Amino acid sequence: MKGILTGIGVGPGDPELVTLKAINVIKKTEVLFYPVTKIGSQSAALQIIEPWISAETRVIPLLSQMTSNPEERKAQRLLQSHQIAEVLETGKNAVMITLGDALLYSTYSYVMKTLQEMGYQVSTIPGISAPSAAAASLNLPLTEEDEGLLIWPGTESEEALIHQLERMTDNIALLKVSACREALYKWLKPRQDRICFSLASRLGSKEESLSQDIEILKDPSLPYMSVALLKVKKGKD
Amino acid sequence: MKGILTGIGVGPGDPELVTLKAINVIKKTEVLFYPVTKIGSQSAALQIIEPWISAETRVIPLLSQMTSNPEERKAQRLLQSHQIAEVLETGKNAVMITLGDALLYSTYSYVMKTLQEMGYQVSTIPGISAPSAAAASLNLPLTEEDEGLLIWPGTESEEALIHQLERMTDNIALLKVSACREALYKWLKPRQDRICFSLASRLGSKEESLSQDIEILKDPSLPYMSVALLKVKKGKD
Repeated sequence: MKGILTGIGVGPGDPELVTLKAINVIKKTEVLFYPVTKIGSQSAALQIIEPWISAETRVIPLLSQMTSNPEERKAQRLLQSHQIAEVLETGKNAVMITLGDALLYSTYSYVMKTLQEMGYQVSTIPGISAPSAAAASLNLPLTEEDEGLLIWPGTESEEALIHQLERMTDNIALLKVSACREALYKWLKPRQDRICFSLASRLGSKEESLSQDIEILKDPSLPYMSVALLKVKKGKD
Repeated sequence: MKGILTGIGVGPGDPELVTLKAINVIKKTEVLFYPVTKIGSQSAALQIIEPWISAETRVIPLLSQMTSNPEERKAQRLLQSHQIAEVLETGKNAVMITLGDALLYSTYSYVMKTLQEMGYQVSTIPGISAPSAAAASLNLPLTEEDEGLLIWPGTESEEALIHQLERMTDNIALLKVSACREALYKWLKPRQDRICFSLASRLGSKEESLSQDIEILKDPSLPYMSVALLKVKKGKD
Protein backbone atom coordinates (compact mmCIF):
# COMPACT_ATOMS: atom_id res chain seq x y z
CA MET A 1 0.00 0.00 0.00
CA LYS A 2 1.17 3.49 -0.84
CA GLY A 3 1.77 6.10 1.85
CA ILE A 4 -0.33 9.22 2.40
CA LEU A 5 0.94 12.82 2.42
CA THR A 6 -0.38 15.10 5.16
CA GLY A 7 0.06 18.83 4.56
CA ILE A 8 0.26 20.86 7.74
CA GLY A 9 -0.07 24.61 8.25
CA VAL A 10 2.11 25.48 11.24
CA GLY A 11 0.82 29.04 11.70
CA PRO A 12 2.38 32.45 11.18
CA GLY A 13 5.50 32.15 13.34
CA ASP A 14 4.64 31.87 17.03
CA PRO A 15 5.49 28.30 18.14
CA GLU A 16 2.45 28.36 20.44
CA LEU A 17 0.09 29.00 17.50
CA VAL A 18 0.40 25.41 16.33
CA THR A 19 -2.65 23.14 16.71
CA LEU A 20 -2.71 19.94 18.75
CA LYS A 21 -3.61 18.07 15.57
CA ALA A 22 -0.43 19.28 13.86
CA ILE A 23 1.70 18.27 16.83
CA ASN A 24 0.11 14.83 17.13
CA VAL A 25 0.78 14.04 13.47
CA ILE A 26 4.30 15.53 13.45
CA LYS A 27 5.34 13.50 16.52
CA LYS A 28 4.48 10.23 14.77
CA THR A 29 5.54 10.82 11.18
CA GLU A 30 8.42 8.78 9.77
CA VAL A 31 9.29 11.38 7.14
CA LEU A 32 8.91 15.16 7.29
CA PHE A 33 9.46 17.54 4.37
CA TYR A 34 10.05 21.24 4.99
CA PRO A 35 10.50 24.18 2.59
CA VAL A 36 13.80 26.04 2.21
CA THR A 37 14.60 28.87 -0.17
CA LYS A 38 18.26 27.81 -0.43
CA ILE A 39 19.93 24.48 0.26
CA GLY A 40 21.42 24.64 3.74
CA SER A 41 19.40 27.72 4.81
CA GLN A 42 17.13 27.85 7.85
CA SER A 43 13.41 27.19 7.64
CA ALA A 44 11.00 29.28 9.72
CA ALA A 45 8.37 26.53 9.44
CA LEU A 46 10.80 23.89 10.69
CA GLN A 47 11.90 26.01 13.64
CA ILE A 48 8.30 26.34 14.81
CA ILE A 49 7.76 22.60 15.14
CA GLU A 50 11.32 21.47 15.97
CA PRO A 51 10.47 20.54 19.60
CA TRP A 52 7.89 17.99 18.39
CA ILE A 53 10.02 16.09 15.88
CA SER A 54 11.01 12.60 17.01
CA ALA A 55 14.65 11.50 16.76
CA GLU A 56 13.51 8.67 14.45
CA THR A 57 11.93 11.03 11.88
CA ARG A 58 13.75 11.59 8.59
CA VAL A 59 13.69 15.33 7.97
CA ILE A 60 14.11 16.32 4.32
CA PRO A 61 14.39 19.84 2.79
CA LEU A 62 12.32 20.73 -0.27
CA LEU A 63 13.96 23.44 -2.33
CA SER A 64 11.44 26.24 -2.91
CA GLN A 65 13.33 29.09 -4.57
CA MET A 66 11.63 32.41 -5.17
CA THR A 67 11.21 32.87 -8.90
CA SER A 68 8.86 34.98 -10.96
CA ASN A 69 9.28 32.64 -13.93
CA PRO A 70 6.14 30.41 -14.12
CA GLU A 71 7.98 27.64 -15.99
CA GLU A 72 10.70 27.48 -13.35
CA ARG A 73 8.09 27.43 -10.60
CA LYS A 74 6.27 24.58 -12.31
CA ALA A 75 9.44 22.55 -12.74
CA GLN A 76 10.37 23.11 -9.10
CA ARG A 77 6.97 21.97 -7.84
CA LEU A 78 7.09 18.88 -10.01
CA LEU A 79 10.49 18.05 -8.56
CA GLN A 80 9.14 18.50 -5.02
CA SER A 81 6.17 16.25 -5.80
CA HIS A 82 8.44 13.53 -7.17
CA GLN A 83 10.69 13.76 -4.10
CA ILE A 84 7.64 13.12 -1.91
CA ALA A 85 6.17 10.47 -4.22
CA GLU A 86 9.39 8.48 -3.90
CA VAL A 87 8.80 8.15 -0.16
CA LEU A 88 5.06 7.41 -0.52
CA GLU A 89 5.92 4.64 -3.01
CA THR A 90 7.77 2.76 -0.25
CA GLY A 91 4.52 2.65 1.76
CA LYS A 92 5.67 5.24 4.28
CA ASN A 93 3.44 8.19 5.19
CA ALA A 94 4.95 11.67 5.00
CA VAL A 95 4.25 15.16 6.27
CA MET A 96 4.90 18.45 4.46
CA ILE A 97 4.86 21.56 6.62
CA THR A 98 4.12 25.09 5.49
CA LEU A 99 3.97 28.50 7.21
CA GLY A 100 0.54 29.96 8.00
CA ASP A 101 -2.54 28.14 6.72
CA ALA A 102 -1.97 25.05 4.60
CA LEU A 103 -4.09 26.13 1.63
CA LEU A 104 -3.73 29.93 1.50
CA TYR A 105 -0.91 30.86 -0.90
CA SER A 106 1.17 27.81 -0.06
CA THR A 107 3.55 25.66 -2.06
CA TYR A 108 1.81 22.69 -0.48
CA SER A 109 -1.31 23.49 -2.57
CA TYR A 110 0.50 22.65 -5.80
CA VAL A 111 2.31 19.63 -4.43
CA MET A 112 -1.01 18.33 -3.08
CA LYS A 113 -2.71 18.71 -6.48
CA THR A 114 0.19 17.11 -8.35
CA LEU A 115 0.29 14.12 -6.00
CA GLN A 116 -3.49 13.71 -6.28
CA GLU A 117 -3.15 13.69 -10.07
CA MET A 118 -0.42 11.06 -9.70
CA GLY A 119 -2.91 8.90 -7.76
CA TYR A 120 -1.71 9.45 -4.19
CA GLN A 121 -3.94 10.11 -1.21
CA VAL A 122 -3.52 13.39 0.66
CA SER A 123 -4.83 14.85 3.89
CA THR A 124 -4.61 18.45 5.14
CA ILE A 125 -4.42 20.10 8.55
CA PRO A 126 -5.27 23.81 8.52
CA GLY A 127 -3.17 26.44 10.30
CA ILE A 128 -3.65 29.94 11.70
CA SER A 129 -3.55 32.30 8.70
CA ALA A 130 -1.59 35.56 8.59
CA PRO A 131 -4.77 37.73 8.47
CA SER A 132 -6.19 36.02 11.60
CA ALA A 133 -2.87 36.42 13.41
CA ALA A 134 -2.50 40.07 12.36
CA ALA A 135 -6.02 40.91 13.56
CA ALA A 136 -5.32 39.21 16.91
CA SER A 137 -2.01 41.04 17.45
CA LEU A 138 -3.72 44.33 16.61
CA ASN A 139 -6.93 43.52 18.55
CA LEU A 140 -8.91 44.55 15.47
CA PRO A 141 -11.98 42.76 14.05
CA LEU A 142 -11.43 41.34 10.56
CA THR A 143 -15.19 41.53 9.94
CA GLU A 144 -18.21 42.80 11.81
CA GLU A 145 -21.94 42.28 11.25
CA ASP A 146 -22.57 41.60 7.55
CA GLU A 147 -19.22 42.82 6.23
CA GLY A 148 -17.02 40.87 3.85
CA LEU A 149 -13.26 40.40 3.90
CA LEU A 150 -11.06 40.29 0.82
CA ILE A 151 -7.69 38.59 1.22
CA TRP A 152 -5.37 39.85 -1.50
CA PRO A 153 -1.74 39.01 -2.34
CA GLY A 154 0.59 41.98 -2.47
CA THR A 155 2.42 40.34 -5.33
CA GLU A 156 -0.25 41.00 -7.96
CA SER A 157 0.19 43.88 -10.41
CA GLU A 158 -0.28 47.46 -9.23
CA GLU A 159 -3.20 47.79 -11.63
CA ALA A 160 -4.99 44.77 -10.14
CA LEU A 161 -4.37 46.04 -6.61
CA ILE A 162 -5.78 49.50 -7.37
CA HIS A 163 -8.78 47.89 -9.05
CA GLN A 164 -9.54 45.98 -5.83
CA LEU A 165 -8.87 48.97 -3.57
CA GLU A 166 -11.14 51.20 -5.66
CA ARG A 167 -14.09 48.88 -5.21
CA MET A 168 -13.53 48.00 -1.56
CA THR A 169 -16.61 48.39 0.62
CA ASP A 170 -15.62 46.71 3.90
CA ASN A 171 -12.26 45.09 4.68
CA ILE A 172 -9.09 44.05 2.87
CA ALA A 173 -6.26 41.98 4.32
CA LEU A 174 -3.25 42.61 2.10
CA LEU A 175 -0.41 40.11 2.31
CA LYS A 176 3.26 40.61 1.42
CA VAL A 177 2.82 44.37 1.63
CA SER A 178 6.47 45.12 0.87
CA ALA A 179 5.78 44.09 -2.73
CA CYS A 180 3.16 46.83 -3.20
CA ARG A 181 3.95 49.40 -0.50
CA GLU A 182 4.47 52.37 -2.83
CA ALA A 183 1.24 51.85 -4.78
CA LEU A 184 -0.65 51.31 -1.53
CA TYR A 185 0.78 54.48 0.03
CA LYS A 186 -0.13 56.59 -3.00
CA TRP A 187 -3.68 55.30 -2.92
CA LEU A 188 -4.14 55.56 0.86
CA LYS A 189 -2.63 59.00 1.45
CA PRO A 190 -5.59 61.03 0.14
CA ARG A 191 -8.09 58.56 1.65
CA GLN A 192 -6.91 58.50 5.27
CA ASP A 193 -10.15 59.99 6.58
CA ARG A 194 -12.13 57.17 5.00
CA ILE A 195 -9.91 54.09 5.43
CA CYS A 196 -8.40 52.73 8.66
CA PHE A 197 -4.92 51.33 8.10
CA SER A 198 -3.05 48.88 10.33
CA LEU A 199 0.10 46.89 9.70
CA ALA A 200 1.62 43.86 11.40
CA SER A 201 5.11 42.64 10.51
CA ARG A 202 7.02 39.49 11.45
CA LEU A 203 3.99 38.07 13.27
CA GLY A 204 4.66 35.86 16.26
CA SER A 205 8.42 36.41 16.24
CA LYS A 206 10.42 38.47 18.74
CA GLU A 207 10.69 41.18 16.07
CA GLU A 208 6.90 41.49 15.65
CA SER A 209 5.94 45.11 15.06
CA LEU A 210 2.57 46.81 14.77
CA SER A 211 1.70 50.21 13.33
CA GLN A 212 -1.30 52.32 12.36
CA ASP A 213 0.71 55.03 10.61
CA ILE A 214 0.68 54.84 6.80
CA GLU A 215 4.06 56.61 6.68
CA ILE A 216 5.60 53.22 7.53
CA LEU A 217 4.84 52.25 3.93
CA LYS A 218 7.57 54.65 2.78
CA ASP A 219 10.21 52.49 4.49
CA PRO A 220 12.08 50.44 1.85
CA SER A 221 13.14 47.97 4.56
CA LEU A 222 9.54 46.97 5.34
CA PRO A 223 9.68 43.20 6.02
CA TYR A 224 8.37 40.90 3.27
CA MET A 225 6.14 39.14 5.80
CA SER A 226 3.89 42.12 6.55
CA VAL A 227 0.10 42.13 6.57
CA ALA A 228 -1.94 45.32 6.14
CA LEU A 229 -5.53 45.47 7.32
CA LEU A 230 -7.68 48.10 5.60
CA LYS A 231 -11.15 48.92 6.88
CA VAL A 232 -13.68 51.38 5.49
CA LYS A 233 -14.79 53.72 8.28
CA LYS A 234 -18.51 53.60 8.94
CA GLY A 235 -20.88 55.96 10.71
CA LYS A 236 -21.59 55.20 14.37
CA ASP A 237 -24.87 53.37 14.95
CA MET B 1 -4.88 46.75 39.10
CA LYS B 2 -7.66 45.77 36.76
CA GLY B 3 -7.76 42.38 35.07
CA ILE B 4 -7.24 41.73 31.36
CA LEU B 5 -9.67 39.96 29.02
CA THR B 6 -8.20 37.43 26.60
CA GLY B 7 -10.43 36.46 23.67
CA ILE B 8 -9.71 33.01 22.28
CA GLY B 9 -10.79 31.45 19.00
CA VAL B 10 -11.14 27.72 19.66
CA GLY B 11 -11.45 26.67 16.01
CA PRO B 12 -14.30 25.27 13.93
CA GLY B 13 -15.30 22.26 16.03
CA ASP B 14 -12.56 19.61 16.06
CA PRO B 15 -11.09 19.54 19.60
CA GLU B 16 -7.66 18.87 18.07
CA LEU B 17 -7.79 22.11 16.05
CA VAL B 18 -7.12 24.20 19.15
CA THR B 19 -3.74 25.94 19.45
CA LEU B 20 -1.23 25.34 22.24
CA LYS B 21 -1.50 29.02 23.11
CA ALA B 22 -5.25 28.72 23.67
CA ILE B 23 -4.78 25.66 25.87
CA ASN B 24 -2.00 27.25 27.94
CA VAL B 25 -4.14 30.31 28.69
CA ILE B 26 -7.33 28.33 29.33
CA LYS B 27 -5.60 26.00 31.81
CA LYS B 28 -4.53 28.95 33.98
CA THR B 29 -7.49 31.32 33.79
CA GLU B 30 -9.47 31.99 36.94
CA VAL B 31 -12.62 32.95 35.06
CA LEU B 32 -13.86 31.69 31.69
CA PHE B 33 -16.83 33.11 29.77
CA TYR B 34 -18.50 31.06 27.04
CA PRO B 35 -21.35 31.89 24.66
CA VAL B 36 -24.75 30.17 24.84
CA THR B 37 -27.82 30.85 22.74
CA LYS B 38 -30.17 29.89 25.60
CA ILE B 39 -29.60 29.74 29.34
CA GLY B 40 -28.89 26.13 30.23
CA SER B 41 -28.14 25.04 26.66
CA GLN B 42 -24.90 23.39 25.52
CA SER B 43 -22.05 25.38 24.05
CA ALA B 44 -20.04 23.94 21.15
CA ALA B 45 -17.11 26.23 22.01
CA LEU B 46 -17.09 25.05 25.64
CA GLN B 47 -17.21 21.37 24.64
CA ILE B 48 -14.09 21.80 22.51
CA ILE B 49 -11.93 23.04 25.38
CA GLU B 50 -13.60 21.22 28.31
CA PRO B 51 -10.63 18.84 28.88
CA TRP B 52 -8.34 21.81 29.56
CA ILE B 53 -10.44 23.68 32.11
CA SER B 54 -9.08 23.51 35.65
CA ALA B 55 -11.39 22.55 38.52
CA GLU B 56 -10.61 25.93 40.11
CA THR B 57 -11.84 27.97 37.11
CA ARG B 58 -15.18 29.77 37.39
CA VAL B 59 -17.05 29.02 34.15
CA ILE B 60 -19.74 31.58 33.30
CA PRO B 61 -22.26 31.55 30.41
CA LEU B 62 -22.78 34.68 28.32
CA LEU B 63 -26.24 34.79 26.81
CA SER B 64 -25.90 35.39 23.04
CA GLN B 65 -29.38 35.02 21.57
CA MET B 66 -29.87 35.11 17.82
CA THR B 67 -31.77 38.26 16.96
CA SER B 68 -32.09 40.27 13.78
CA ASN B 69 -32.97 43.37 15.77
CA PRO B 70 -29.85 45.63 15.93
CA GLU B 71 -31.03 47.38 19.13
CA GLU B 72 -31.52 44.05 20.90
CA ARG B 73 -28.12 42.86 19.73
CA LYS B 74 -26.49 46.03 20.99
CA ALA B 75 -28.16 45.75 24.39
CA GLN B 76 -27.13 42.11 24.67
CA ARG B 77 -23.50 42.90 23.87
CA LEU B 78 -23.43 45.71 26.38
CA LEU B 79 -24.77 43.34 29.03
CA GLN B 80 -22.08 40.78 28.16
CA SER B 81 -19.38 43.46 28.38
CA HIS B 82 -20.60 44.58 31.80
CA GLN B 83 -20.69 40.98 33.04
CA ILE B 84 -17.03 40.63 32.08
CA ALA B 85 -16.07 44.11 33.35
CA GLU B 86 -17.41 43.16 36.77
CA VAL B 87 -14.83 40.38 36.97
CA LEU B 88 -11.97 42.52 35.58
CA GLU B 89 -12.78 45.19 38.21
CA THR B 90 -11.85 42.72 40.97
CA GLY B 91 -8.35 42.46 39.43
CA LYS B 92 -8.93 38.96 38.06
CA ASN B 93 -8.05 38.14 34.46
CA ALA B 94 -10.73 36.47 32.34
CA VAL B 95 -11.00 34.51 29.11
CA MET B 96 -13.84 34.63 26.57
CA ILE B 97 -13.96 31.76 24.10
CA THR B 98 -15.54 31.83 20.66
CA LEU B 99 -15.93 29.28 17.83
CA GLY B 100 -13.63 29.57 14.82
CA ASP B 101 -11.30 32.55 14.59
CA ALA B 102 -11.55 35.16 17.34
CA LEU B 103 -12.07 38.19 15.08
CA LEU B 104 -13.99 36.84 12.08
CA TYR B 105 -17.74 37.33 12.65
CA SER B 106 -17.51 36.80 16.40
CA THR B 107 -19.43 38.20 19.34
CA TYR B 108 -16.06 38.63 21.02
CA SER B 109 -15.24 41.44 18.50
CA TYR B 110 -17.96 43.67 19.96
CA VAL B 111 -17.25 42.80 23.57
CA MET B 112 -13.55 43.51 22.95
CA LYS B 113 -14.31 46.95 21.48
CA THR B 114 -16.74 47.83 24.25
CA LEU B 115 -14.29 46.83 26.99
CA GLN B 116 -11.51 48.81 25.26
CA GLU B 117 -13.81 51.85 25.20
CA MET B 118 -14.47 51.28 28.92
CA GLY B 119 -10.71 51.44 29.51
CA TYR B 120 -9.89 47.76 29.98
CA GLN B 121 -6.94 45.98 28.42
CA VAL B 122 -7.62 43.10 26.02
CA SER B 123 -5.55 40.46 24.30
CA THR B 124 -6.56 38.09 21.51
CA ILE B 125 -5.54 34.57 20.47
CA PRO B 126 -6.51 33.69 16.88
CA GLY B 127 -8.19 30.41 15.93
CA ILE B 128 -8.57 28.25 12.83
CA SER B 129 -11.25 29.90 10.71
CA ALA B 130 -14.12 28.06 9.01
CA PRO B 131 -12.78 28.75 5.46
CA SER B 132 -9.34 27.31 6.36
CA ALA B 133 -10.95 24.25 7.94
CA ALA B 134 -13.34 23.73 5.00
CA ALA B 135 -10.47 23.92 2.49
CA ALA B 136 -8.45 21.40 4.52
CA SER B 137 -11.34 18.92 4.81
CA LEU B 138 -11.95 19.22 1.07
CA ASN B 139 -8.22 19.23 0.17
CA LEU B 140 -8.87 22.30 -1.99
CA PRO B 141 -6.64 25.40 -2.25
CA LEU B 142 -8.32 28.59 -1.00
CA THR B 143 -6.01 30.61 -3.24
CA GLU B 144 -3.32 29.89 -5.81
CA GLU B 145 -0.71 32.11 -7.43
CA ASP B 146 -1.95 35.71 -7.45
CA GLU B 147 -5.61 35.00 -6.76
CA GLY B 148 -7.68 36.73 -4.10
CA LEU B 149 -10.20 35.26 -1.67
CA LEU B 150 -13.41 36.96 -0.61
CA ILE B 151 -14.93 35.78 2.66
CA TRP B 152 -18.60 36.66 2.66
CA PRO B 153 -21.36 36.11 5.27
CA GLY B 154 -24.38 34.21 4.00
CA THR B 155 -26.57 36.38 6.17
CA GLU B 156 -26.33 39.50 3.99
CA SER B 157 -29.19 40.40 1.63
CA GLU B 158 -29.73 38.36 -1.56
CA GLU B 159 -29.02 41.50 -3.56
CA ALA B 160 -25.64 42.06 -1.89
CA LEU B 161 -24.73 38.40 -2.37
CA ILE B 162 -25.57 38.42 -6.08
CA HIS B 163 -23.61 41.67 -6.46
CA GLN B 164 -20.51 39.95 -5.03
CA LEU B 165 -21.04 36.75 -7.04
CA GLU B 166 -21.44 38.69 -10.28
CA ARG B 167 -18.08 40.36 -9.89
CA MET B 168 -16.14 37.37 -8.57
CA THR B 169 -12.91 36.69 -10.42
CA ASP B 170 -11.14 34.10 -8.24
CA ASN B 171 -12.48 32.58 -5.02
CA ILE B 172 -15.32 33.12 -2.56
CA ALA B 173 -15.74 31.41 0.80
CA LEU B 174 -19.38 31.80 1.73
CA LEU B 175 -20.30 31.28 5.38
CA LYS B 176 -23.67 30.29 6.87
CA VAL B 177 -24.81 29.02 3.49
CA SER B 178 -28.20 27.85 4.77
CA ALA B 179 -29.21 31.51 4.99
CA CYS B 180 -28.71 32.08 1.26
CA ARG B 181 -28.89 28.59 -0.29
CA GLU B 182 -31.78 29.32 -2.65
CA ALA B 183 -30.28 32.48 -4.11
CA LEU B 184 -26.91 30.76 -4.44
CA TYR B 185 -28.45 27.76 -6.20
CA LYS B 186 -30.33 29.94 -8.67
CA TRP B 187 -27.15 31.83 -9.52
CA LEU B 188 -24.87 28.77 -9.70
CA LYS B 189 -27.11 26.44 -11.73
CA PRO B 190 -26.52 28.11 -15.14
CA ARG B 191 -22.84 28.73 -14.31
CA GLN B 192 -21.72 25.21 -13.35
CA ASP B 193 -19.30 24.98 -16.26
CA ARG B 194 -17.51 28.11 -15.07
CA ILE B 195 -17.58 27.88 -11.24
CA CYS B 196 -16.37 24.99 -9.08
CA PHE B 197 -18.61 24.46 -6.06
CA SER B 198 -17.74 22.66 -2.83
CA LEU B 199 -19.53 22.53 0.48
CA ALA B 200 -18.45 21.50 3.97
CA SER B 201 -20.96 21.18 6.81
CA ARG B 202 -20.51 20.67 10.55
CA LEU B 203 -16.75 20.90 10.24
CA GLY B 204 -14.70 18.87 12.67
CA SER B 205 -17.67 17.11 14.23
CA LYS B 206 -18.66 13.46 13.76
CA GLU B 207 -21.43 14.66 11.43
CA GLU B 208 -19.02 16.51 9.11
CA SER B 209 -20.16 16.17 5.50
CA LEU B 210 -18.59 17.25 2.24
CA SER B 211 -20.15 17.69 -1.19
CA GLN B 212 -19.38 19.04 -4.63
CA ASP B 213 -22.94 18.71 -5.95
CA ILE B 214 -24.87 21.99 -6.08
CA GLU B 215 -28.16 20.07 -5.76
CA ILE B 216 -27.39 19.86 -2.02
CA LEU B 217 -28.38 23.55 -1.87
CA LYS B 218 -32.00 22.53 -2.51
CA ASP B 219 -32.09 20.72 0.85
CA PRO B 220 -34.02 22.85 3.38
CA SER B 221 -32.29 20.95 6.23
CA LEU B 222 -28.82 22.15 5.18
CA PRO B 223 -26.95 22.81 8.47
CA TYR B 224 -26.53 26.46 9.50
CA MET B 225 -22.80 25.87 9.97
CA SER B 226 -21.99 25.19 6.31
CA VAL B 227 -19.22 26.78 4.26
CA ALA B 228 -19.31 26.92 0.45
CA LEU B 229 -16.12 27.39 -1.53
CA LEU B 230 -16.60 28.84 -5.02
CA LYS B 231 -13.72 28.94 -7.47
CA VAL B 232 -13.66 30.33 -11.00
CA LYS B 233 -12.35 27.66 -13.36
CA LYS B 234 -9.22 28.71 -15.22
CA GLY B 235 -7.53 27.41 -18.33
CA LYS B 236 -4.73 24.90 -17.79
CA ASP B 237 -1.25 26.39 -17.97
